[in-house]
Amino acid sequence: MKLWDKGTPLHSLVESFTVGDDYLLDRELLPYDCRATASHARALEKTGILTRGEVEKIDAALQDAQGIEILREHEDCHTALEEFLTARLGDLGKKIHAGRSRNDQVMAALTLWTREHLLRTGGELLSLCDGLNEFARRNELSMPGYTHMQRAMPSSVPLLFGSYLESLLEDLELLHGAFRVINRNPLGSAAGYGTSLGLDRELTAEELAFEGVRNCILVQARPRLMAVALMPLTFIMKTLERMASDLLLFTMEEFGFFSLPDGLTTGSSIMPQKKNYDILELVRARSALVHGYAHEVDMLGIRLTSGYHRDFQLTKRPVLEAFAETMNCLAMMRLIVSELSADPDAMRKALTPELFAADRACELVKQGVPFREAYRSVAAGLDELSVPGSIIPERCHLQFRDYRGEIDRYRKLHEALGEGKKSPSR
Amino acid sequence: MKLWDKGTPLHSLVESFTVGDDYLLDRELLPYDCRATASHARALEKTGILTRGEVEKIDAALQDAQGIEILREHEDCHTALEEFLTARLGDLGKKIHAGRSRNDQVMAALTLWTREHLLRTGGELLSLCDGLNEFARRNELSMPGYTHMQRAMPSSVPLLFGSYLESLLEDLELLHGAFRVINRNPLGSAAGYGTSLGLDRELTAEELAFEGVRNCILVQARPRLMAVALMPLTFIMKTLERMASDLLLFTMEEFGFFSLPDGLTTGSSIMPQKKNYDILELVRARSALVHGYAHEVDMLGIRLTSGYHRDFQLTKRPVLEAFAETMNCLAMMRLIVSELSADPDAMRKALTPELFAADRACELVKQGVPFREAYRSVAAGLDELSVPGSIIPERCHLQFRDYRGEIDRYRKLHEALGEGKKSPSR
Amino acid sequence: MKLWDKGTPLHSLVESFTVGDDYLLDRELLPYDCRATASHARALEKTGILTRGEVEKIDAALQDAQGIEILREHEDCHTALEEFLTARLGDLGKKIHAGRSRNDQVMAALTLWTREHLLRTGGELLSLCDGLNEFARRNELSMPGYTHMQRAMPSSVPLLFGSYLESLLEDLELLHGAFRVINRNPLGSAAGYGTSLGLDRELTAEELAFEGVRNCILVQARPRLMAVALMPLTFIMKTLERMASDLLLFTMEEFGFFSLPDGLTTGSSIMPQKKNYDILELVRARSALVHGYAHEVDMLGIRLTSGYHRDFQLTKRPVLEAFAETMNCLAMMRLIVSELSADPDAMRKALTPELFAADRACELVKQGVPFREAYRSVAAGLDELSVPGSIIPERCHLQFRDYRGEIDRYRKLHEALGEGKKSPSR
Amino acid sequence: MKLWDKGTPLHSLVESFTVGDDYLLDRELLPYDCRATASHARALEKTGILTRGEVEKIDAALQDAQGIEILREHEDCHTALEEFLTARLGDLGKKIHAGRSRNDQVMAALTLWTREHLLRTGGELLSLCDGLNEFARRNELSMPGYTHMQRAMPSSVPLLFGSYLESLLEDLELLHGAFRVINRNPLGSAAGYGTSLGLDRELTAEELAFEGVRNCILVQARPRLMAVALMPLTFIMKTLERMASDLLLFTMEEFGFFSLPDGLTTGSSIMPQKKNYDILELVRARSALVHGYAHEVDMLGIRLTSGYHRDFQLTKRPVLEAFAETMNCLAMMRLIVSELSADPDAMRKALTPELFAADRACELVKQGVPFREAYRSVAAGLDELSVPGSIIPERCHLQFRDYRGEIDRYRKLHEALGEGKKSPSR
Repeated sequence: MKLWDKGTPLHSLVESFTVGDDYLLDRELLPYDCRATASHARALEKTGILTRGEVEKIDAALQDAQGIEILREHEDCHTALEEFLTARLGDLGKKIHAGRSRNDQVMAALTLWTREHLLRTGGELLSLCDGLNEFARRNELSMPGYTHMQRAMPSSVPLLFGSYLESLLEDLELLHGAFRVINRNPLGSAAGYGTSLGLDRELTAEELAFEGVRNCILVQARPRLMAVALMPLTFIMKTLERMASDLLLFTMEEFGFFSLPDGLTTGSSIMPQKKNYDILELVRARSALVHGYAHEVDMLGIRLTSGYHRDFQLTKRPVLEAFAETMNCLAMMRLIVSELSADPDAMRKALTPELFAADRACELVKQGVPFREAYRSVAAGLDELSVPGSIIPERCHLQFRDYRGEIDRYRKLHEALGEGKKSPSR
Repeated sequence: MKLWDKGTPLHSLVESFTVGDDYLLDRELLPYDCRATASHARALEKTGILTRGEVEKIDAALQDAQGIEILREHEDCHTALEEFLTARLGDLGKKIHAGRSRNDQVMAALTLWTREHLLRTGGELLSLCDGLNEFARRNELSMPGYTHMQRAMPSSVPLLFGSYLESLLEDLELLHGAFRVINRNPLGSAAGYGTSLGLDRELTAEELAFEGVRNCILVQARPRLMAVALMPLTFIMKTLERMASDLLLFTMEEFGFFSLPDGLTTGSSIMPQKKNYDILELVRARSALVHGYAHEVDMLGIRLTSGYHRDFQLTKRPVLEAFAETMNCLAMMRLIVSELSADPDAMRKALTPELFAADRACELVKQGVPFREAYRSVAAGLDELSVPGSIIPERCHLQFRDYRGEIDRYRKLHEALGEGKKSPSR
Repeated sequence: MKLWDKGTPLHSLVESFTVGDDYLLDRELLPYDCRATASHARALEKTGILTRGEVEKIDAALQDAQGIEILREHEDCHTALEEFLTARLGDLGKKIHAGRSRNDQVMAALTLWTREHLLRTGGELLSLCDGLNEFARRNELSMPGYTHMQRAMPSSVPLLFGSYLESLLEDLELLHGAFRVINRNPLGSAAGYGTSLGLDRELTAEELAFEGVRNCILVQARPRLMAVALMPLTFIMKTLERMASDLLLFTMEEFGFFSLPDGLTTGSSIMPQKKNYDILELVRARSALVHGYAHEVDMLGIRLTSGYHRDFQLTKRPVLEAFAETMNCLAMMRLIVSELSADPDAMRKALTPELFAADRACELVKQGVPFREAYRSVAAGLDELSVPGSIIPERCHLQFRDYRGEIDRYRKLHEALGEGKKSPSR
Repeated sequence: MKLWDKGTPLHSLVESFTVGDDYLLDRELLPYDCRATASHARALEKTGILTRGEVEKIDAALQDAQGIEILREHEDCHTALEEFLTARLGDLGKKIHAGRSRNDQVMAALTLWTREHLLRTGGELLSLCDGLNEFARRNELSMPGYTHMQRAMPSSVPLLFGSYLESLLEDLELLHGAFRVINRNPLGSAAGYGTSLGLDRELTAEELAFEGVRNCILVQARPRLMAVALMPLTFIMKTLERMASDLLLFTMEEFGFFSLPDGLTTGSSIMPQKKNYDILELVRARSALVHGYAHEVDMLGIRLTSGYHRDFQLTKRPVLEAFAETMNCLAMMRLIVSELSADPDAMRKALTPELFAADRACELVKQGVPFREAYRSVAAGLDELSVPGSIIPERCHLQFRDYRGEIDRYRKLHEALGEGKKSPSR
C-alpha cells in the first residue's frame, strides 16, 4: 500500500509512469535509511512519543532490515522498510513514521550515502596519487612537450605525471568543500516545513556526526545539494580525461611513448593486427557521462520554486551512477598506472633539435642579448642545435619531484573528515 | 568467445569495465540485427561467397533467432547472434560475418531501430494532436493570457491548446528532416573503411528501403547520427514541458482553471489533504532528462577524429532511453488531455477588467486616436472597463480553429515515410 | 521615452540591469524591423486605420530609416524606429504602432533575420562543398584509416573528404527543415494574444513570403524558435569540428599527411621553430561555443509557462553570435581547403603492411575459408603482407566520387527556398 | 608587430578570425598583467638578468602603464604592455620578456584577476546575507509552504528567507574551496614546460601572496582552472534563481504575498495596466547564462591533451562575463530585498485550514495514536480544522532565527583570505 494511499485507485499507466526504478536503486540506500531511522527514533524518544524499550526494539528490527528485499510494489526502500517494521513490530512500526515524510527519509538516506561515497571517492583518488608518484619516480625521462598539438619544448615524464597528481589533489580540495556543505543534518525537515512535534534536530545531528543542522526548506533543494556532491566528481573526471587523452595520443604507433600489456587492451573483430586502448577511451567517455549526469541534475532543478517537486525523484539515478563511474575510473587508472611502460628510445628520438631553440635563446639572454633579438637569431640557425640525451640539468623542474609528503598530508585531512571529526575550517 | 579474441586473456577488471550493459539494451536491437544480417547475406550471395541455398538456410535460422537470450558473456546481441548461427549452421554461421565488423552490425541495427522508432514517435505525436484538437473543440472558453507571469490580455482554451498542437506539428516537421538524414544505408561500411569484397551497397539499400548509401567514414560518426535522431525528441519534449508547466500553474488552488480526476493524481505521506499532479511534474522532469541524454550524446562525440572510438558504445543507452521517455510522455499527455476538465467559472472570475485595456485602446485607435494617446487615456480610466462573459466576437482568433485537415495531411506524409516510399523532398 | 512609460522614474541601477546590449545587437535587426513595419502598415490600411497615402508616406520614411543610429537610451531598434517615424511623420508615426507590441516587433524582425541568415549559411555551406569536391578530385591518394586512434585499414583522401561533404549535405537537409519551421508569419500576434483590430495575418504572410501563419502564443515561445534556428548550426559545427580535429592530428610532425602555407599558420612568442594551426583550433573551439550558445538558448526557455517572459530578451546575443561564428568557420574552412596540401609520400609510408590484413582475410574468404578462420590465419602471418603503392583497384569505394550532381541538386533546392517559392514538402 | 612574428604576412581573413575580442576584454586584465610583470622582474633580478636599477625603472614604467590603450593591432594587453615598455625603456623593455611566453602572461593575469574577483563576489554575497537577515527580522510572518506546487503546510517568511541565506553561506564555502585551488603561482611556467633560466617560483609566489606553486603543465590546463573559478558562481546563481522564481510566483496577483515599488518594476508597450517584475526575470535568465558560460568553458577544454591549445583563448569572455553577471545579480537582489514589501493579509488568507492537517495528525500522535491512523482520521474531517492567525508557537522553527553571528564568522574568514593570510585548511 502506498504511504499516501487515500482509497482511490491510481490509473495503472500513471502508476508505472510515476514509480520509476527507485526500487532498484534503493538497494544502495537502504542501510542509510536504517541508520537515519534509528536516529529519528531517539528524537521521538526525547519528545516522549517512544519509550526507551520501544527504541531498543526498533534498533533490533533495523539490524535485520539491512537485507530486506525491495519490490516494485514498494516503489522505494522507505515503504519497504516501513512495511517490514510494521510486520515485525505492529503498531510500533507505524509510530516510527511520526514527524517524517518520505522526502525527509529520502534526503536523510541520500545525505548519509553521499557523505560516505565522497569519502570513498577521496580514498580511491589518494591511491591513484600514490601510483602516479611511483610511476614518476620509476620513469625519470625526458620527453617532448606539445603546444598547439605541435612539438614545442622539452618536457618529462615526472612533470607530466606530476601535473595529473597535483590536479587530483586540487580536486580533493574541492571534494572536501563539497563534503562540508553536504555534511549537515536533514532529519526533522519533514515535508520541508518541519513539524510541530518539537524534534531535537541538534540531537540527531550529533548522533549522525553532522556538523550542524540544515534549514528545512533548503534540505528540499535536492538538485542543488546533489549538484554539490557531483561537483568534485566532474573535476576528477576532467583530470582523468586529460590523462586518458594524453595516453591515447602517446600510445599511437606514430609516437610509441607508452604502452600497456595485452591483458589491458582489446582486439578487432575484423583486423587481426589491432591493439586497442579501449579502457582509456572508456575513461574519456565516462568523463562525458559524469559531466552529463551533473548537467541532468542541474536541469532537473532549474527554475523550480522552493519546496519539493516530484522532478527531484529523477536525480537519484544520475547521482548513484556518477559516483559508481568515477570510482571505477579512478580504480581503472590506478591499474593502468601500475601496468604502464614508458619507452625511453621513442621519447629520445622525438626530442628533435628545434625543441631546444627556446633554451638556446635563453642562453643568449643570459649573455645579455635582449629576448626578442635572441629569438630571431636562434630562429635563423635552428639546424645547428644539438640534443641532450637525458633530463637537462639546468631544467631542474623536469626532474622527479616527490609528492609523498603532500599526499600524506591530504590523506590525514581526509581521514579526519571520515572519522566525523569537525573539519578544520568551520 | 570474443569476436576479436587473440588468445591473451583480458584482465578481469578490464572486462567488466568495458562490457557495460549492452547485453541488456541489445534485447531491443536484436530483431534489427537479424533483419540487417539477412540483407547482408543477399549481398554476399551476389559476390558469390554464399549460395542461394545457404542464404535460405540463414533466413530460416534468423527467423528463430528473434527470441535468443543475450548473456553477459556475449557482451552484445551481435556476438549472441553469431554464436547462435554458428551453433545452428556450423561453418555457414561463420561465413555470414565476412565483410562486416561489429561496428557495421551496430550501426545497421541502430539505424533500423532508430528509423522505426522515429516513425512510432511520430504516430504517438499525431494521436496527441487528435486529443488536443478534441479538447479545444469541447472547451471553447475565454481565459486570461499571461505575460511576465502577470495577467495581461484575454486568451482562450482553443488558442492555448492550438499553440501546443501547432508546436507538435512543427516538431513533426523536424522529425521528418531527421528521418531523411537517418534513412541511408550503413551496410557495407565494415570498420568504417569498406571492404575489398565488392559488396553491392545499393542492393542492400533497396532491400532495407533506405534512400541511398552513406559514406563509410560518415557511418562511423555515430554520436552525430544519434544526435540527429534525438534532435526532434528534444523539441517534442520542449512542447510537452511548456504544456506541463502551464497545467502545473493553472491547477494550483490559486487558479483552478483545470483539474484532473483523483485516479491521475497522487497524495502525500504526511499531509492528508494533498492532491499532487506528479505526472505533470514527471513530464517536466523527463524533458530535462531527454535534453540531458541529447547532451550526453553530443559530449560523447565532441572533438573526436574520424573513425570509430570506443566512446561511441556509450551512446546506446541515452538513445534508447530518450525514445522510451519521449514516447511515454506523449502517451501520458494523451491520457491527460482526455481526462482534463476546464472550469469556466474560475476562468471567468480571472478575466478582470484591466485585461481589456488594450482592446479598449484599440477601439479608440479605430476612432482615429493615435495609439500612444489611446494607451494613456485608457491607463487613466481602468476601473470603468466592463468584462465580457465569453469569447469576444471581434477577437476571432480566440475561437476554436479546427486542425483536423492539417493533422490528416501530416498523418499521410508520415505514413508515406513509414511505407518506405521515397520521401517527398529528395 | 520608454514605449511603456507610465510616469514613474525607473531606478537607475534597474535601468542599466534591464537594458542589456540590445541597442548594439539591433543594428543587425533594424532593416528587418523596417520591412515588417512596412507590411504591418498594409494590414492597418486594410482595416481602415491607415489610408493608402499614409502607407506611402510610411514606406518612404522606412527607406530612410535603414541608417538611423540606435542609442543606449532607445534600449532597442524598435524604439529608435518609432522615434524616428514620429519625428518624421508626427501623429502618423504613432499610429503605426496600433495592434503591435514590442514582442511582436522583436519576433517579426528576428524571424525575418533568421530566415535570411539560414539561407546565407546554406550558401556558404554549399561553397565549402564545392571546395571539398575539388580537393578530393585533385588528391586521389591512399592514406591509413584509423579506429580507436590506431592505424586500422586503407582509406583515402576522397573517402575522408567525401565524408565531410556528405555530412554537410545532411546538415543542409536539417537546415531546410528548420527553415520550414521558422518560415511562418509572426505578425499580428501582438503581446502573444492577438488584437481586436481584425488584422489580416494571411495578407502580411503573403507580403513577407511566409508559408502560413503561426499561432499567437506559439510566436512568443521564442527560445524554442531560436533553438530551431540554431539546431542546424550545431550540426554544421559538428562536421567542421571533426574536419578540424582530423587535420590537427594529421598536420602533426608525427603524421605530416597535410600542411598549410605559412600565411595560414601562426608562430610562438617563445619558440622560434613553431608553426601552429590556430585556425583549426579556433574552428574546433567555435564548435564548442556554438553548442554553448544553443545550450544557453535552451536554458533560457526551459520550464517557463506560455506567454512572454523577459528572460527571452537574452536569447538575442547567442543567436546572432552563433550565426556569425558558423558563417566565419564555413568561410575559413573554404579557405583552408583551397590552400591545403597533401603529402603522398608521408601517406604511403604510413600504409604499413598490417593495414592490409583484413583485405588478405577477405581474399581467403573468397576462396571459401570461413571468415573467423581466415582471420586467425592472417593474424599468424602479418609480416608477409606486401603494400600496394596507390589506391587498390578492388577497393573502389576509395576512389574519387564526384558529388557535383548532388551539390547542384541541393543548390537548386536551396535557391528555391530563398526565392520565397513554396518549399517542396509542404 | 606580433610577439611571434616571423616575417611571413598572415592572411588577412585569418588575422581577423584569430584575433577575437581580447583587445577589448583585456582592459580588465591589464592592471593584473602589470602586477605580475613587476613580480617577474624581481625573479629576473635574482637570476642576474636584470639589475636592481633596471627593476626600479620597470616598476616606474609599470605604474604609468595602467592606463595605456589596447588597440586591435595589439591583439591583447600583453603585446600592448610590451610595446609600451619598449617605447619607454628601449632594450630593457625587451628584456622583461625573457623566460615568459604569452600563455604565462595570460595565466598570471587571469589568476590574479580571478582571485580578486572571487573575493569581491564573496563580499557582495555577504552584503546580501545582511539584507536577507534584516528582511526576515522585520517580517516574522506565517505563510503557506508549497510542495508539488500545491499549498501543503504552514511556513514563514523567516524560514523561507533563512533558506536563501543558508544557501548563500554554503555557496561561500564552495567559493573558498575554489579560492584555495586558484591561489597558486603560475609565474615561471612559460609555455607550459618551464624555462632553463632558473627562475625562483617560490619568490614570485611569496611576492604575489600565492599559497604555493603550480606545476607548469597544470597551469596550462586553463579551462579546468577557469571551471574552478566559475563553479561557485553557478551555485550562487542557483540560489538567486530559486529566490527569483519564488518571488515571481508570490508577486502574481493570484498570490500577492510580496510586492516591489513601481521604481523597480516596468510596464508594457501595449497593456496600460501591467506591472512587470523584469528584474526578477532577468536574474532568473542570468542564472541560465552563467550556467551556460560555465558549460562553454567546460566544452572548450574537453578531451584536449596536455599543453596549450588556442581553443583556450575563448574561455576569457565567458569567465569575465560570468563574474560581471553574478556580481550584478547579487547587487540587484540586495536592492530588491531592501525594497520588498510583504503583505500579511494575503498570507493569512492563504493559510487555509487544510494546511494544518499534518499538525493535527501530530497532536493525535502525541496522544498515542499511531501516525498512519492519525493521518486517516484527520483526512476524514478536514473541514473542522481552525486556522491560527500568526506564527504557531509550537512550530518554533518558523520564528525568526538570527544569522548575524554566522554571517560575521564567515565575513572574518573571507577577509582573512583577502589579506593574503594563509587560509585555514592548508
